[in-house]
Amino acid sequence: MSTQPQHSKPLALRNVTVTDPFWHAEQELVRTAVIPFQWNALNDNVPGAAPSYCMHNFKAAAAQNARKDTEGKKFVPPAYTYRGFESKPDDPKNPDPDKFYGFVFQDTDFSKWIEAVGYSLTQHPDAELEKTADAAIDIVCAAQLDNGYLDTYYILNGMDRAFHNLRWHHELYCLGHLIEGAIAYYEGTGKDKLLKAAERFADYVGEVFGPNPDQLKGYPGHEIAEMALARLADLTGKQKYLDLAKFFIDERGTEPNYFRYEGERDKKDGYSDTNWTFDYPYAQAHKPVREQTEAVGHAVRAGYLYSGMAAVAKLTDDPTLVTACENLWRNIVDKKLYITGGIGGTVNGEAFSYNYDLPNDSAYSESCAAISLAFFARRMLEIAPKAEYADVMELALYNTTLAGMALDGKSFFYVNPLEVNPYACHKDNRVGHVKPVRQKWFGCACCPPNIARIVESVQEYAYTISDDETTLFTHLYMGGVARAELGGAAVTLDVAAELPWKGNGVATVRLGDGDGAGSTSPATFTLAFRLPGWTGSVDAAAAAISATGEADGARVTREIRDGYVYFTGEWHDGDEVTFDFPMPVRMMAANPMVREDSGRVAFVRGPITFCAEGADNGDNLHLLHADVDAIVADPEAVKVVPFTFHAGAAGIDADGQGEVDEVARDMVRLEVPAWREPVPSGTTADSAAFAPLYAPYQPVKREATTATLIPYFAWANRGENEMTVFLHD
Amino acid sequence: MSTQPQHSKPLALRNVTVTDPFWHAEQELVRTAVIPFQWNALNDNVPGAAPSYCMHNFKAAAAQNARKDTEGKKFVPPAYTYRGFESKPDDPKNPDPDKFYGFVFQDTDFSKWIEAVGYSLTQHPDAELEKTADAAIDIVCAAQLDNGYLDTYYILNGMDRAFHNLRWHHELYCLGHLIEGAIAYYEGTGKDKLLKAAERFADYVGEVFGPNPDQLKGYPGHEIAEMALARLADLTGKQKYLDLAKFFIDERGTEPNYFRYEGERDKKDGYSDTNWTFDYPYAQAHKPVREQTEAVGHAVRAGYLYSGMAAVAKLTDDPTLVTACENLWRNIVDKKLYITGGIGGTVNGEAFSYNYDLPNDSAYSESCAAISLAFFARRMLEIAPKAEYADVMELALYNTTLAGMALDGKSFFYVNPLEVNPYACHKDNRVGHVKPVRQKWFGCACCPPNIARIVESVQEYAYTISDDETTLFTHLYMGGVARAELGGAAVTLDVAAELPWKGNGVATVRLGDGDGAGSTSPATFTLAFRLPGWTGSVDAAAAAISATGEADGARVTREIRDGYVYFTGEWHDGDEVTFDFPMPVRMMAANPMVREDSGRVAFVRGPITFCAEGADNGDNLHLLHADVDAIVADPEAVKVVPFTFHAGAAGIDADGQGEVDEVARDMVRLEVPAWREPVPSGTTADSAAFAPLYAPYQPVKREATTATLIPYFAWANRGENEMTVFLHD
Repeated sequence: MSTQPQHSKPLALRNVTVTDPFWHAEQELVRTAVIPFQWNALNDNVPGAAPSYCMHNFKAAAAQNARKDTEGKKFVPPAYTYRGFESKPDDPKNPDPDKFYGFVFQDTDFSKWIEAVGYSLTQHPDAELEKTADAAIDIVCAAQLDNGYLDTYYILNGMDRAFHNLRWHHELYCLGHLIEGAIAYYEGTGKDKLLKAAERFADYVGEVFGPNPDQLKGYPGHEIAEMALARLADLTGKQKYLDLAKFFIDERGTEPNYFRYEGERDKKDGYSDTNWTFDYPYAQAHKPVREQTEAVGHAVRAGYLYSGMAAVAKLTDDPTLVTACENLWRNIVDKKLYITGGIGGTVNGEAFSYNYDLPNDSAYSESCAAISLAFFARRMLEIAPKAEYADVMELALYNTTLAGMALDGKSFFYVNPLEVNPYACHKDNRVGHVKPVRQKWFGCACCPPNIARIVESVQEYAYTISDDETTLFTHLYMGGVARAELGGAAVTLDVAAELPWKGNGVATVRLGDGDGAGSTSPATFTLAFRLPGWTGSVDAAAAAISATGEADGARVTREIRDGYVYFTGEWHDGDEVTFDFPMPVRMMAANPMVREDSGRVAFVRGPITFCAEGADNGDNLHLLHADVDAIVADPEAVKVVPFTFHAGAAGIDADGQGEVDEVARDMVRLEVPAWREPVPSGTTADSAAFAPLYAPYQPVKREATTATLIPYFAWANRGENEMTVFLHD
Repeated sequence: MSTQPQHSKPLALRNVTVTDPFWHAEQELVRTAVIPFQWNALNDNVPGAAPSYCMHNFKAAAAQNARKDTEGKKFVPPAYTYRGFESKPDDPKNPDPDKFYGFVFQDTDFSKWIEAVGYSLTQHPDAELEKTADAAIDIVCAAQLDNGYLDTYYILNGMDRAFHNLRWHHELYCLGHLIEGAIAYYEGTGKDKLLKAAERFADYVGEVFGPNPDQLKGYPGHEIAEMALARLADLTGKQKYLDLAKFFIDERGTEPNYFRYEGERDKKDGYSDTNWTFDYPYAQAHKPVREQTEAVGHAVRAGYLYSGMAAVAKLTDDPTLVTACENLWRNIVDKKLYITGGIGGTVNGEAFSYNYDLPNDSAYSESCAAISLAFFARRMLEIAPKAEYADVMELALYNTTLAGMALDGKSFFYVNPLEVNPYACHKDNRVGHVKPVRQKWFGCACCPPNIARIVESVQEYAYTISDDETTLFTHLYMGGVARAELGGAAVTLDVAAELPWKGNGVATVRLGDGDGAGSTSPATFTLAFRLPGWTGSVDAAAAAISATGEADGARVTREIRDGYVYFTGEWHDGDEVTFDFPMPVRMMAANPMVREDSGRVAFVRGPITFCAEGADNGDNLHLLHADVDAIVADPEAVKVVPFTFHAGAAGIDADGQGEVDEVARDMVRLEVPAWREPVPSGTTADSAAFAPLYAPYQPVKREATTATLIPYFAWANRGENEMTVFLHD
């Protein structure tokens, strides 16, 4: 129906609480383990971890600013010195207090941390943490230049080359993360000091870049500023930020190519720091974004760009940009998406591989890329509520995003393979990027804080409200309470759900502002609920959800559209929407064009993708076959077993990589009819050969067994072992 | 029987002629296409190909020598200048006539060419070619220093650093190839000018390296000198060359590691040319060779080393070295050998991958590595005649070695994958080393001349004679004539055979020296014939071969040992050994530990490994399945079809890469019961998605078809297309 609202936006974080045991546990992990750890990391206080130098750099820049104020005209600003993409002190124990260290984008460690802190404080006030954050913000703001510029790499190394190397030097990436962090902290605490600083930086960037002849025609080398500026525009109502976001998007990949111009200019001028070969598709700058139909290049960059495009498309009502987003979405979902919600098939450029190339063992599938896909999906939902967007968003959140963090919140995956043979990881540098256990921290620390910020704000993915405030969309079924103004009435939706393990639940409607004291007056609005793709059938899902008002005099009518059921009409306080979605175990096969998955199946149930680990199934997982015939004959033959998973592993290497504290988490495992191609017990690649390398084919002897599959996000929590998502059929 | 001779050596090339249509065609290709092309290449006369600078360098060094003679004491030798692993002129059109260009080992282009020329002249006298070769030899010899040193890189760039970078600078590799080439030319023509030059270089190296306190304890970074010196010792009877070969082998990988010493010394001395990280296993220098049980590192280096070890083990009767060879052989054959006779699973270091890691699409399987495996196998046969050695040697020769060269002899593969999807080769730099069509020439031209030299000397792999000259071993059944002195009698074995297409033939025994006039006196000796592994059964093979003398009064008795049948007794002129070996099509599966080949089968028949090409079977070969059940039920369902293969392809790219002349060759194809998983006609990775990326598993619809398989060596002769050796089952 064309009268239905299309555009929507998330409910403010403060208006949604999560009591859901699943997400509550994840959020508590982030709050109690990750955020404090991160703070120590960015202050270089983690023994054994590579120092971040993040706060060091802000302090150095703040001190330089103070000197400038003291010295006045006598102050001589530093002249530009190239420090490399990453610079380290000669003596790690005695970094020069005035110098910049770390990666060129090291400032974002703070921004990502403050973003998670902002979200966390929204849900869980913590005076001590807020005090720490305020003090950090004071330092960061003291580092800002008078003109608003705020990137310590250039402040400390010489502003004469600021904005000269957009390809690699990440200033606009730093701007984007600063905006995201500042908004989160503002929304969480009401404090706007950092937000004002971010705005001033954005204002300055808006002066430097733009369509006028005296402005630069560049755009971010690593995208994120686009989506951040759109969000800033939405928050502040200031058109200029949206204009700037749109400028970056519209300019990207146009001719003459700005990155080529930069490279040629700097080569001529003799700047070695920009002599790196630049690959335009790597940064989605190979053609104008509206002409891009295939998702290419660095997957995180791409996901952030597409999110920014979707955000701007919505806010500017730009149908050509919507079409571009839809094309790129289709390409990802049809040809470039792992069944774990991951994206990025190749380590080369941490990038999307070619169409249908989804290798399992050499996957890149960066945690951040899955998160960027969730960003993109949420923004596509905001443009048009279609269940596919929410299905993919949910897949990315529950699987690859969470797999990025150990169940104790203390170690992290950057790369999320779908198949791991630790023997190969140790022997073979073709899979050198694949780690069989999580790492404590990364020098290039994008994934851990990215996981922290999305987990702490997961509510924003659960609900959106239509721009005309008549419809509340429930995209994810998450236990908790959502509050919104709908059709002029104050509405509270109180949801009980047990996702991802059970498909049933109830959403109770409360009317009125009060503290549980409902309004007596009915109200008219629409509650739209997603019919999850994992039910296997829109009809089955639709039949499994009903509203009280449907039976009660048909006060409420239903309409099914794009995978959502829209309940519209007169709502009474206490009305319930009950659902009991079927959650069949689904044995999935990939499109035949996916060569890597030929002859293989994977198991999913609800939003969870499962995997087999050596800990449960022994080694040589390539010899473990799902008994597909038995399962087709009787799908019930796959048993769904609730159980308590016990994480815990002693340190795997000298640095303690792979260590996981003992943690118990209730979850569900699958017991799958299977068979195993027998090899002599204890056979490894290094044991004596038990058979010739090649022999006449004989039908394989099938040793019947049961494969135990656990949720993918829980893998590698019991030490180093084999893992596979896809089993041979 | 312990009384049986164990050690043997090849018949001299001049004593074996090849009339076999299969090998005759290959040898003619090399003689008429490759050798002339090679000569042009090493004289920089191939339009469009990267110049070799090989003869340029020899001329420059000869000119410098002449200047030295003219200038006498006024001559100032060049002081060392590092020119890089490869150096090119600033202006390619005007190389400095006095400077060295090309790779540090560029001299070997000549040595490999002269080796092929020597072999060719043995079989096919050619006064014009011999004249060209003599002139080239004059130039090369004129480049040699008075002390015998002969490596133009150092002669032209400064002898003060000669033998200072054994890891990378390949002087001893140049020595090895020079010896091999010189021996071949001496044996082919009787001219010893080059042989004497090689001996003088070897003598000088023998002064520089050795056990005495004033000698260097180093050994080749890239092996080959070991096997070459052993051959030189065998030819000349000079023990010193064997001692030097043994010294190199015994020193290798001992502590203190010589390569580490070199690196540390040069780092201290500030030589940047040796600052590359050196990986000891890469060069088989990680431990003493007798402690090595796993084949590791650069596969060509390894194959040459193992060949040298086997040669020295035989000549020195060293059981510990024999055991080391046997261990390494076992590891290769049990865990690291492609079914095409290729070795080297990974592009990283062009090296053996870990045990059982035999990827098909990213295989390295360098042509030279298969050739080195044939070298190793022949030398293992010389130590002890066991059919396994000959089986593997034959596999390497007929498949990967020949696949390295197009059927017109004009383009070459360096890398020999077992599965190629051209789309992936163009899109994905993880398989960037895999070319879907052969290349015209390589700057680093090891493979084409290596193919040339082994093809021109393939007779040396067919026969060996026991050291006591009582037994002639036939390892390969090759049409032609072999002459030997056996038990004091002049014996000629005249073999008619039609390998690799048919398993039958006859070997006629002629006694006496004459030109067909046989001796009337019987003679006593042993003729040993290999029972090929591809018959599937030693018993079946043994039953398929018989000697006239067995029936005729049991003058000749048979013994089966290690896969050979030994016919011993009294032979009469005109006696025949007839054979009709079964040559079943064998549907092979890999050891279950080979993850890449799980659920796959390959087809072999006789020594030939087959493959499916897109040209015969359409695209998307991963959807083509062998109907294994049908084939197990009726092995005769696979049809063996003699046919005429028509090679020919227009130039694929601007440089003409992939172009193949129209050539017709008689061969055999297999028609294999198969089925195809259907996808819409014309589907490519870039067409619109015809199905979701993931969907509930359904038993695959089987579209019955017949797969057409051609010999692997003939692939990629009809333009760019998909190819696979292993089919899904």
